[in-house]
This record gives sequence, C-alpha cells and structure tokens, in this order.
Amino acid sequence: MPISRFVEYEDAPPEVRAVYDDIMASRKVDWVNNFWKALAQHPPTLKRTWESVKEVMAEGALDPLTKEMIYVAVSVTNGCEYCINSHTAAARRGGMTPAMHAELMAVVGMANETNALVTGYQVELDDKLYKAAREA
Amino acid sequence: MPISRFVEYEDAPPEVRAVYDDIMASRKVDWVNNFWKALAQHPPTLKRTWESVKEVMAEGALDPLTKEMIYVAVSVTNGCEYCINSHTAAARRGGMTPAMHAELMAVVGMANETNALVTGYQVELDDKLYKAAREA
Amino acid sequence: MPISRFVEYEDAPPEVRAVYDDIMASRKVDWVNNFWKALAQHPPTLKRTWESVKEVMAEGALDPLTKEMIYVAVSVTNGCEYCINSHTAAARRGGMTPAMHAELMAVVGMANETNALVTGYQVELDDKLYKAAREA
Amino acid sequence: MPISRFVEYEDAPPEVRAVYDDIMASRKVDWVNNFWKALAQHPPTLKRTWESVKEVMAEGALDPLTKEMIYVAVSVTNGCEYCINSHTAAARRGGMTPAMHAELMAVVGMANETNALVTGYQVELDDKLYKAAREA
Amino acid sequence: MPISRFVEYEDAPPEVRAVYDDIMASRKVDWVNNFWKALAQHPPTLKRTWESVKEVMAEGALDPLTKEMIYVAVSVTNGCEYCINSHTAAARRGGMTPAMHAELMAVVGMANETNALVTGYQVELDDKLYKAAREA
Amino acid sequence: MPISRFVEYEDAPPEVRAVYDDIMASRKVDWVNNFWKALAQHPPTLKRTWESVKEVMAEGALDPLTKEMIYVAVSVTNGCEYCINSHTAAARRGGMTPAMHAELMAVVGMANETNALVTGYQVELDDKLYKAAREA
Repeated sequence: MPISRFVEYEDAPPEVRAVYDDIMASRKVDWVNNFWKALAQHPPTLKRTWESVKEVMAEGALDPLTKEMIYVAVSVTNGCEYCINSHTAAARRGGMTPAMHAELMAVVGMANETNALVTGYQVELDDKLYKAAREA
Repeated sequence: MPISRFVEYEDAPPEVRAVYDDIMASRKVDWVNNFWKALAQHPPTLKRTWESVKEVMAEGALDPLTKEMIYVAVSVTNGCEYCINSHTAAARRGGMTPAMHAELMAVVGMANETNALVTGYQVELDDKLYKAAREA
Repeated sequence: MPISRFVEYEDAPPEVRAVYDDIMASRKVDWVNNFWKALAQHPPTLKRTWESVKEVMAEGALDPLTKEMIYVAVSVTNGCEYCINSHTAAARRGGMTPAMHAELMAVVGMANETNALVTGYQVELDDKLYKAAREA
Repeated sequence: MPISRFVEYEDAPPEVRAVYDDIMASRKVDWVNNFWKALAQHPPTLKRTWESVKEVMAEGALDPLTKEMIYVAVSVTNGCEYCINSHTAAARRGGMTPAMHAELMAVVGMANETNALVTGYQVELDDKLYKAAREA
Repeated sequence: MPISRFVEYEDAPPEVRAVYDDIMASRKVDWVNNFWKALAQHPPTLKRTWESVKEVMAEGALDPLTKEMIYVAVSVTNGCEYCINSHTAAARRGGMTPAMHAELMAVVGMANETNALVTGYQVELDDKLYKAAREA
Repeated sequence: MPISRFVEYEDAPPEVRAVYDDIMASRKVDWVNNFWKALAQHPPTLKRTWESVKEVMAEGALDPLTKEMIYVAVSVTNGCEYCINSHTAAARRGGMTPAMHAELMAVVGMANETNALVTGYQVELDDKLYKAAREA
C-alpha cells in the first residue's frame, strides 16, 4: 500500500476515471499501474501529471524509445527503483534490445563516474566548450 | 586552476602525450579539454578513464548522439556544470537540434518530478512491471 | 537487522537508557524506534544526534508540523525510505491532513522538475533575485 | 547566456507573451526572471511548466510561504543554486523572517544528516511507523 | 533476478569465465557475487568494470581498507543498498572494527549535514581555502 | 555574501566569539572561514554544528586525515564546491599527498560508477554479503 491509498477504477470519481481511460487508451493496455492509482488520491495531481507525461513523452524531435531510455538514465541516477523498473519495461516494449540496454547502463555508469571526477578535481569549463554548448 | 594542476602537452610525459594524441585523433580536433589535462596529473587515471570513455561512447547498439544525450541527462541530474556544457557541446556537434535539446530537457525534468512523486508516495512495484522489465 | 545491531533497552548501558528515556518522554510514547536502537551501538553518536534533532525540531520560529514536512521533502529528494515513512508518520501525528500531504508531494515533485530544468539550461541568476535573496 | 538563449518580451511570439503576461500579473511584478526566458525557447515547455507551477504553488491546504520553504529545502538538497536563490527570495517576499530561514536551514541540514545515518546503518522500518505513515 | 539475468559460471562463455576466475583468485574466495553475474550479460562491461575496480582498489598511496571505507561513504550518499552492504562487508573483511564503522557513519552523516548548510546559505569560498586546496 | 550575512568577530556577540575562539584554538589558525561566519547569524546552529564537527572529526578509531578524505568523498558525491575545497585543503594540511588525492578521486569516481550499474541492473543482494556486512 502506498502512503495514502490506491484508488481503484470501480471506486474512482468521474474525473479520475477519465484519466484512467485516457491512460489505457493512449498506451493500448487494459490496466493502470500503481503510480497513477496512488496519485489519484489527489485528482488535480493525477490529471496534471498525466497530461504532462503524455505531452512530454510523445513522438516529437526525439522518438519515444529514446525518451524512455533517457527516463531510465535519470531514474538510475536518482535511485528510484519503481521508475527504473517501469521505464525499463516501457523501453523494452518500445524495442530496446538487451544490447541497447547494456550500452545504456554503460553510459549511465560512465557518466556518473566522470561527473564525480570533474567535480572532485573542480575542473574549470573551457571557453571553447562554453561557446560550443550555446552556439546556434 | 583545478585542484591538482593542468598538465599541458609540452610538459607531459610520453604516456600522457599518447593519450592526448589518441583523444585528438579520435575526436578529429586539435586541442584537449581541461578535464583530461586535470586527470593527467595521475597518468593511470587518465589512461583508464579515456579508454573506458572511448569504448563506452563508440557507435554500437546505440548511436553516439543518443549516448551523448543520455550523458547530458545524467549530468543534469547530478548537477555537474562542466559535464552539462561539455556533453551538450558534443551532442550539438553530433547533430542535436534545438528542438531535440528542448525535448531532452523536458524529459529530464519530468523524470525528476515523477521520481520524486513515486518515492514520496512509496508506491510498490506492480508485478506486471517487474516481469516486463526482465523478460527475454 | 541493521548493519551493526539493535541495542534494546534492557541490554543498554546507562547513558543509552538516559537517551531512550528522554526520547520517550519528549515524544510522549512508550517505545523507541529502530533508528535510535541502531545508533545506540555508538553512544556518542546516539546522544549527539538525539540532542541535535530535539533542538532543531522544537517549536520555534517554525512550528513542528512545518518542520516535519520539510524533513519529508528532503527525505523524498534523497530517496530515504525509512525517513520518508517515519517523518510522514510524525507529520500525520502532528496534524498533516491528506490534502496537505498531497500538496506537499506536488511541491516536492515540481521542485525536483524545475531544479533539473534550471540546471539543464544552465540559467544564470538574475541580479534582482540575488539581491532579493539577501536583503534585510 | 543559458544553454539555448533568452527570449525577450519584445522578440517573443504571442503564445510566449501570453505566459509572460500571466507570470507578471500573477506575481504582481513588472519583469520576468531568466528561468522563464530560457524555457521560452520551447513554448510548450514554458506554458506547461508555468501552468503547473502556478497550480502547485497556489494557496491551498498549505499556504504559499510554507510551499516556498519546501521548495528551498528540495533545492538545497539538489544543490540548485539558481533555485535556492529564487525561492529564498520568494519566501522572503512572502514573509519568511531571518529566524525562520535559520530554522529552515537547520532542519534541512539535520534531515540530510539523519538520512545518511539511516541509510548507512541500513535500518529496517518499524512496523508501527509503516502503519502510522499510512493510517487514515 | 536482476534486470537482464545472471550468468552462472557453468553457462558462461570463456571471456566471462576468465574474469570470474580472476575475481576469485584476486579476492581469495570461491564464489562470485551477483553484481558481476549481472554485468556478465555484456562481457565488455564486465571486463572493463572488473579491471577498473581491480586497478583502483589495489594497495597504493592509500591502503585497501581506507579505499573500502571511502566506497561505503559514496554508496551511503547515493543510497545504493547493495553497494553499502557489499563494501561494508569488504571493509570488515579488511579489518574495519565496529568503532571504525561507527566513526565512518558519523563522518558521513556530518558531511551530508554541512554540505546542505553550506549550500543552503550559499557561502562563498574563502580565497585562502581556494589556494590551500591547490598548493603544491 | 551568503544568503543572510557574515558575522565578523568584532561585531559578534559573546556566544559567537566563544565559538570562533574555540575554532581558532582547536585548529591552531588565526582566522575563521566563511562557513562559520554565515552560521553565526543563528548562534544555536553555529554552536551545535561546531561542537558536532569537533567531536566527529577528532582523532579516534579513525585518524583525522582519513576522516577528511571521507568528507571529501561525500562532498564530491553531493557536488558541494565549497566543501570540496575546504576539506581538500584540510586533508592536504593533514598530510594528503598528490598521489593519495589522485587515488581518492579514482575511488570516488569508481564508486559512483558501480553504484549506478548496481542500481540500473537492480541487482539483488547476495545472502552471503548481507550476513558478512552484519557479523560481529
């Protein structure tokens, strides 16, 4: 049980059901995972979070699979177990192969290492890199 | 100046020069950025880190641009400014458009938000997601 | 069992019992939770930590409930499950309603999101905000 | 200059101006801070983020000042300098006295310390606390 | 089961067995822990990570026990439970007494607290400390 | 200038001067660094923090230099620049050579990498390691 409680479909008020319906329709699944059922305790948070996630994770300049892998990278760095599992599952559903997963992990590991090395040595940013990160 | 000091090419011992030469050749650039010049104080760390980065960031099951964007996602989550700048620069050099960058930022922001919501509500992992993250 | 071991009241040396007694008296409860029983392996850490927590969490310019909610916010951001549970429990005991909890979660989520956006875009601080954060 | 660039009011397209106008009207100020001018590069992120922040930070079961202090607590834990400055400024504007600020800092410091102690000792959650965090 | 799967010795290809053999020989143990069996799904990551860990954790200017305690300090700060357990176990094997462990925890706790205080108050670095951190 | 303001010795009330005197006497220096001057705005936080740091960092089962290096490891992982500089300075004053510093950095980097790999792969703890971390 989450802190607070899960809101099941059959007990949900109409504004929660509407979000659940949209989640299932958008994802082409017939169930809603625990995250949303926990948020549904507070319908404005449920609605706002779902609409934001839906907008952000849609096909755009980046494809949905790349977005899911980025989500995994952040979740690993934050140590959010639920999120690692749920977004790894989503990435697999979206076509991430074991080889892609292994490389994702390797990059996330290496980035965490070099982040620490840069920070520990207090390396100043090169002017050239500052400019290159900003040029049109 | 970083903690420790920068090792410039002209002052570098042969094993450091060899790494600098490989960095410049691999990246097709004629200079070495501060990170490597700080690591060069301790040649085994320089060599090990460069060889690891080179292996991990190479074209593979994921393309180099996707890897750079994942690197940025981790660096933002850790708040490493040097790393954000240097890998954003690398991603731009590799073809990341402003629209792709904006979507990368949006995903990183959203992942950090929902990581906190999941953790704050202490949501238990759904069995279905546990399995889906692990299936062959 | 924690790393180290729990020190139970009946096995505790006098200086540990004195802290346990003060914890129970201050909180008007008849038991001591696992955190303190783990720290009690090292009595100076137990005593110092309890006295610091007691001083910091007391009624002052901020009321104890606000302080507990701030504690939850930090614990969520760090991903400390024990701490999230124990301080959410304390906040509820102190009067936090479900609506207050839901808003606390929403703020913590949003703060984690915008922290990442600010960092990812490397936004420079406005002079006006720098000054406003510091003015008397 | 941030990564990407600032969008000034006079150069902004109508949908960005509409958000800027709403920010200034809601906050009763005559300028827009750098965060929003950086997000404005990608109007959907600007609009979504502003509307979310506005909803989440409004008077509700928690008052706006408490919300700003929670925002500061998260921002300190994440080490986001811009965010610490901007939300400390907002909290001061909302009535946070120096004594309240000092206590906020003390709680954030203590929470970060005990989070580490709990995690380092790998303390198991007490059943009583698990239940107390969840009861109606 | 981890995300991906464990590779057992009897099912392992020769390049994985060679790493497992080296792990067991170097550590003078007759089994391989789960971390390596998870990495073995991707032999280049297994090999690179093991060789790096072996090089970094070897006796050098710092002794192996000090290195294990530093590893624990990082793992606590990141909240990595597996890592806290495995490196605490290694430190005990290497001679860390309960008193040493208690002091390690106290330092890690205090460092997390003062890190937050420094960050929350946005304290500027003293010139003298800047120089002292860098002098030859 | 920190958020709030620095309290200089000549403007300090007696209870702040007493702490400043103890800091200078304990460290055998004739000045007080900015961290304490920022905390001094709230004398109870100054006194409590100094007394805790003094107790925790004293010679004990671990020597002061090892403690300073652990402090650096935590500060790097949290990205606290002031803290990295001040504790690196303290470690140098206490005898940390460049070679020791380089190995400290290497361990901190590696720990951050393997923490991420363990978390990303969601590796379950081995029973043997769980026990070994806890045995008397």
